[in-house]
Amino acid sequence: MGEANLWVGQRTIRPDGEEKVTGKARFGADFSQPGMLWGKVLRSPHPHARILSIDASRAEALAGVKAVITGADLVDFPVDTPVQVGPADMRFVSRNVMARDKALYAGHAVAAVAATSAQAASEALELIDVEYDELPWVIDVEDAMKPDAPVLHDFLRTDGIEPPPDTPSNIASRTGFTLGDVEAGFAEADVVIEQSFRTRPVHQGYIEPHACLVSVGGDGRATIWSSSQGHFMVRNATAKMTGARLSDIRAIPAEIGGGFGGKTIVYLEPLAYALSRRSGAPVKMVMTREEVFRATGPTSGSSNTVRIGAKRDGTIVAAEATFRFQAGAFPGSPVRAASNCAFAPYNIPNVSVVGYDVVMNRPKCNAYRAPGSPIAAFGVESVIDELAETLGMDPIALREKNAAQEGTRAAYGPTFRRIGFQETLEAAKAHPHYSAPVPEGGGRGIASGFWFNVGGESSAQVAINEDGTVAITTGHPDIGGSRASMVNMAAEILGIHYRNVSVLVGDTSSIGYSATTGGSRVTFASGTAVTEATRAVVQHLRERAAILWDIDPEAVEWQDGHAHPAGANAGDFEPLSLAELAAKASQTGGPIVAQVSVNAQGAAPAFATHICDVAVDRETGKVDVVRYTAVQDAGRAIHPDYVEGQIQGGVAQGIGWALNEEYIYDDNGQLENPGFLDYRIPVASDLPMIETEVVEVPNDAHPFGVRGVGEVPIAPPMAAVANAIHNALGLRLRELPMSPPKVLAAIGGRS
Amino acid sequence: MGEANLWVGQRTIRPDGEEKVTGKARFGADFSQPGMLWGKVLRSPHPHARILSIDASRAEALAGVKAVITGADLVDFPVDTPVQVGPADMRFVSRNVMARDKALYAGHAVAAVAATSAQAASEALELIDVEYDELPWVIDVEDAMKPDAPVLHDFLRTDGIEPPPDTPSNIASRTGFTLGDVEAGFAEADVVIEQSFRTRPVHQGYIEPHACLVSVGGDGRATIWSSSQGHFMVRNATAKMTGARLSDIRAIPAEIGGGFGGKTIVYLEPLAYALSRRSGAPVKMVMTREEVFRATGPTSGSSNTVRIGAKRDGTIVAAEATFRFQAGAFPGSPVRAASNCAFAPYNIPNVSVVGYDVVMNRPKCNAYRAPGSPIAAFGVESVIDELAETLGMDPIALREKNAAQEGTRAAYGPTFRRIGFQETLEAAKAHPHYSAPVPEGGGRGIASGFWFNVGGESSAQVAINEDGTVAITTGHPDIGGSRASMVNMAAEILGIHYRNVSVLVGDTSSIGYSATTGGSRVTFASGTAVTEATRAVVQHLRERAAILWDIDPEAVEWQDGHAHPAGANAGDFEPLSLAELAAKASQTGGPIVAQVSVNAQGAAPAFATHICDVAVDRETGKVDVVRYTAVQDAGRAIHPDYVEGQIQGGVAQGIGWALNEEYIYDDNGQLENPGFLDYRIPVASDLPMIETEVVEVPNDAHPFGVRGVGEVPIAPPMAAVANAIHNALGLRLRELPMSPPKVLAAIGGRS
Repeated sequence: MGEANLWVGQRTIRPDGEEKVTGKARFGADFSQPGMLWGKVLRSPHPHARILSIDASRAEALAGVKAVITGADLVDFPVDTPVQVGPADMRFVSRNVMARDKALYAGHAVAAVAATSAQAASEALELIDVEYDELPWVIDVEDAMKPDAPVLHDFLRTDGIEPPPDTPSNIASRTGFTLGDVEAGFAEADVVIEQSFRTRPVHQGYIEPHACLVSVGGDGRATIWSSSQGHFMVRNATAKMTGARLSDIRAIPAEIGGGFGGKTIVYLEPLAYALSRRSGAPVKMVMTREEVFRATGPTSGSSNTVRIGAKRDGTIVAAEATFRFQAGAFPGSPVRAASNCAFAPYNIPNVSVVGYDVVMNRPKCNAYRAPGSPIAAFGVESVIDELAETLGMDPIALREKNAAQEGTRAAYGPTFRRIGFQETLEAAKAHPHYSAPVPEGGGRGIASGFWFNVGGESSAQVAINEDGTVAITTGHPDIGGSRASMVNMAAEILGIHYRNVSVLVGDTSSIGYSATTGGSRVTFASGTAVTEATRAVVQHLRERAAILWDIDPEAVEWQDGHAHPAGANAGDFEPLSLAELAAKASQTGGPIVAQVSVNAQGAAPAFATHICDVAVDRETGKVDVVRYTAVQDAGRAIHPDYVEGQIQGGVAQGIGWALNEEYIYDDNGQLENPGFLDYRIPVASDLPMIETEVVEVPNDAHPFGVRGVGEVPIAPPMAAVANAIHNALGLRLRELPMSPPKVLAAIGGRS
Repeated sequence: MGEANLWVGQRTIRPDGEEKVTGKARFGADFSQPGMLWGKVLRSPHPHARILSIDASRAEALAGVKAVITGADLVDFPVDTPVQVGPADMRFVSRNVMARDKALYAGHAVAAVAATSAQAASEALELIDVEYDELPWVIDVEDAMKPDAPVLHDFLRTDGIEPPPDTPSNIASRTGFTLGDVEAGFAEADVVIEQSFRTRPVHQGYIEPHACLVSVGGDGRATIWSSSQGHFMVRNATAKMTGARLSDIRAIPAEIGGGFGGKTIVYLEPLAYALSRRSGAPVKMVMTREEVFRATGPTSGSSNTVRIGAKRDGTIVAAEATFRFQAGAFPGSPVRAASNCAFAPYNIPNVSVVGYDVVMNRPKCNAYRAPGSPIAAFGVESVIDELAETLGMDPIALREKNAAQEGTRAAYGPTFRRIGFQETLEAAKAHPHYSAPVPEGGGRGIASGFWFNVGGESSAQVAINEDGTVAITTGHPDIGGSRASMVNMAAEILGIHYRNVSVLVGDTSSIGYSATTGGSRVTFASGTAVTEATRAVVQHLRERAAILWDIDPEAVEWQDGHAHPAGANAGDFEPLSLAELAAKASQTGGPIVAQVSVNAQGAAPAFATHICDVAVDRETGKVDVVRYTAVQDAGRAIHPDYVEGQIQGGVAQGIGWALNEEYIYDDNGQLENPGFLDYRIPVASDLPMIETEVVEVPNDAHPFGVRGVGEVPIAPPMAAVANAIHNALGLRLRELPMSPPKVLAAIGGRS
């Protein structure tokens, strides 16, 4: 191998940059086919209603209309048997994609049409006659948990309680765990703080609405072009819902204009497939922004209680939490992940966590960046801050005293290998930001965060081109610069200039199975596959040189992009470059290619500690983040630009979640702000430049030490902002968003 | 492995059939991009002229014109150093793609433009001012060989003669070989027949004109969509001529509307690349049919002499031939292959062959189906027929007496392994056609043919989908049903239904290097790669079952699509299906995928024997083929439909070559018939249904015995038709095409 750090850690130019900045990159809505139809979805106007009948005859009679489908056109999965596609249960996803007997939220798809123009399709929607029987509805998590709440699903029995209930409930599950003896722990505590917190559902807020083009042939062979975080997931979910076999579907990944977890599942593809199968023509579907808000997953809103007890010296002795999470219309909130993340940064001997996954008449929630962790961190890190205040300790010092480290038994189960939480705390404490004066009239807050990071299944191929340049194929949509990272790692191992390495995100027919991009898994898992394949190529190259030199492959070493005889005994040969070996590949055995598929194990958790300064306008209640520093352990930053970019993006989203983002419903269960004008995500002028500091505590299970980066940075911001507001105003806000009305009310309440 | 013959040898439905018959398949001209320009080529009106200057200023000033290029925009390869891309020399290909100092034939590209519309591009061509100095030109091969002929290339010295000449010549090379003692051989002969033959250049006649779309980004990364027989060749040739690195070009194969050798090289792609690079926009280029005829390769016309001597019992004792081949404007006729093929079917102790590769002011010739072999066979098989007549022998019996077989030392070098020529002769003799009465007034002819078949570099990947269906990726454009053959072989080995196997022709970024489709190599070489990859997958599947059963992988056998314990000692386990193993892949190690690249050795020659009945209209000279039977050794017919289809297609092309096809030039060196109305290829109404009989003498170097099919069938038809005409009229035609005027003249000449 060449010298380390030839390319790993370098800010190489991203391979997909030019295409993206010049507008040539093709996103989900950029695909077309001759004879293509436009598909549109009819959505329920009611938050909860039985569908008595659907009469599409008037729509079908409209000129240009080629197909109308309803839930009956998708596979009808029995409600009592899970049908998994990765972490998603198709029983629920399929019923979310298209309602069956009941519409469960305002926006729930009930029918779809395909027509020769988008306008004809829209007109046709108005001609579909749906007879509804409106039902009582419930939209708040605490209301939905009440015994007399309107029940969404007759079949749903709360999982995880004994004895198993025999009546339906909106509580899909009760989960949790206990470590040590919590009562005894709190009895030891000198200080106990218990607070309740509420968060609102927030949307992933990707710029690109869901879009796809699907063409199904008369022989059942189909192509899907769509924007997603995983085209293998798209293929599998679509096949499951339509009864197709996987070998008959080629799913081609578009570039993705943001996903953040929200494109880990399908909404349109099965509908477009069914419409194309019915009509015999390719069908394109593109959501409006309003549809994105009304019908695609936000993450959960929640209602939570956190209780922490500590000794006077700051030693935390007990912790307890209850999380009540909105799942939306179907089970599947990230309450379990929230429970696991909640106290993971700390070494606490006695812990008890309970989580409730609750359905209500809202869009089915979906993954959003570190699902569950930010919600848990908002409560836990606020209470930690309050504890530090109560104990008169520096908030970083309190965290350092209790920080999990190598060998700590995390409350949720595992014993940590080497982790870098302590390092983030030290770096935060040493950061100039922490010692800078707090802005006058403003405040400073600290918060930490945690994410597991994920491994799993990835495939990669590395091929030597005839001129000695290199082609990588992976199976993962590039949501955060992963192409650049793969290039850096392969070029590093090969010892060649990174511009001689290309990387393609292969479609489902050209690369082995690769699980969805998400969970901060790609640089780890796909990086492992690419690294192993590149190493296999290097081994081939050594063998090819050995053939040409007629020596043993073990006597050939690979350095600086050349095969060298390994030591004086190996023989006296001029080094052979990659280009020379490539030119002779035909005579030494044929093309030089290696393919590797892995189920990558050994993903390593990552931690972050953030410092946030706010200014508060006491007249309007508007809070401005004026300085923000995020310190995070990346394990190893393969490409620092995209590590920093991920951190900055995560912080920006966290600040939006903290200060502004919320779903506003009227009294009829209708979302009032389904657009970016009214649903306020931060724009550039709302934020300071987010400062980042990357700590590198390597993960020994990855060839270059990667942990994963994308999730952790969204965990601390809400608590960091809340703690900063407290520092500024002396009052604690425990309900999100901390928008001007709430801040004003809090100020007013105090005065 | 499952029972043989589950799918190999079955007429399964081709995977690409539905797309092709419904018009959804995308050919070279079917690709577009936003902001795309149209490229057009300015071509020389003169057969030979020095280019004194090119002034594009008026063209560049035309509204919509975005780029004009000339030969100066391509890499200038020194004339004295070969630059190979496969069998093609870029020194010549590049100068053919765009003229440099001289235009060498009427139709030679001299400049190209890209404009916002095809019309603007055409108008711009007329505004490019080229100053020519017209030169004497030569178009016939014998004229071009004369010492005083106009010389095309100052740098060209005849290769293969001693001493090396120091003056330029149009004879690019003299090649040949000798076996035994030819003079002594002929001295032993009781009968010697020597005849001269002429053939005209004929075009490959593919339906789809050359077409491409090329997009070059500002960072140098480019995508090429084009129709070709080898997208790796397209990528490599384009990169060579433009100075790009291979990792910067992704060449995506379109479906191909016929190639027959004519799409083994580039014409437009480097021009479109240069225009796109210059303009910054994607550039689409589509040839007209006239351009196809004026500027793309036909195969060589030729002037040849064949001499064969035999004993009275029919034993051939000596053979001699001289082949003079038109190479067109640059060296590279298939004269060497013709020389090698000429006497390959026969066991002859004394052989001498000489070949001349000669340049003249015609389009550069290109490969056409069994390049050279049909031209050689026309002469040799005509003389063999005449020999049989002279000796009073049945023409099949004479061939049988001299047929090459296992152990025969072919005159061109190798000693044959097991071959099937004898079997084709026996099958022809036993065929009902051979014993049927000759049509009244008509005639029957016999001829045989030979082709080497080719192996070489191919890559394949076989991946198991999550549901147990299978995805194959290969690197070869499918010109004759190869997708279906790959599916048959993989399904056979896996023991699953063929419809559960998909196959994709991967682009240059998603599959390992794969040499050009041609030479009758794909079912052999790509089939070897697919077979090896499938077997590797089966091995993985045995290992996965062994993990689940906790036994040794050697104790698992694969049968009928299931893993079984191998014998009673292995343990008592229920067989696991492919679907079950796929579902558990994640827990047994991850995705199940295998990739194999080979340089396939052991390609085995194939032989054919054809029987042709003709009717001759003595008033018009029109010859009709009324019955035709082709017997051929395929080694193993993986998919009989496409073996038979290849045979029928080759025969149809051979009959066209025999009877009608020719380039007609006027006195100014201008092609007079550049279109399918005047260049007469056979249409359905011209031909009977071609009967086929496939003999299977397996090639032991291929897993299923494949030899290769596509080339051989075009070798015998010209001689078979000529021999049939002789049988009908009692006179021999030795100049192609045997069109009505020539037949009439021959009849007249006799009367």
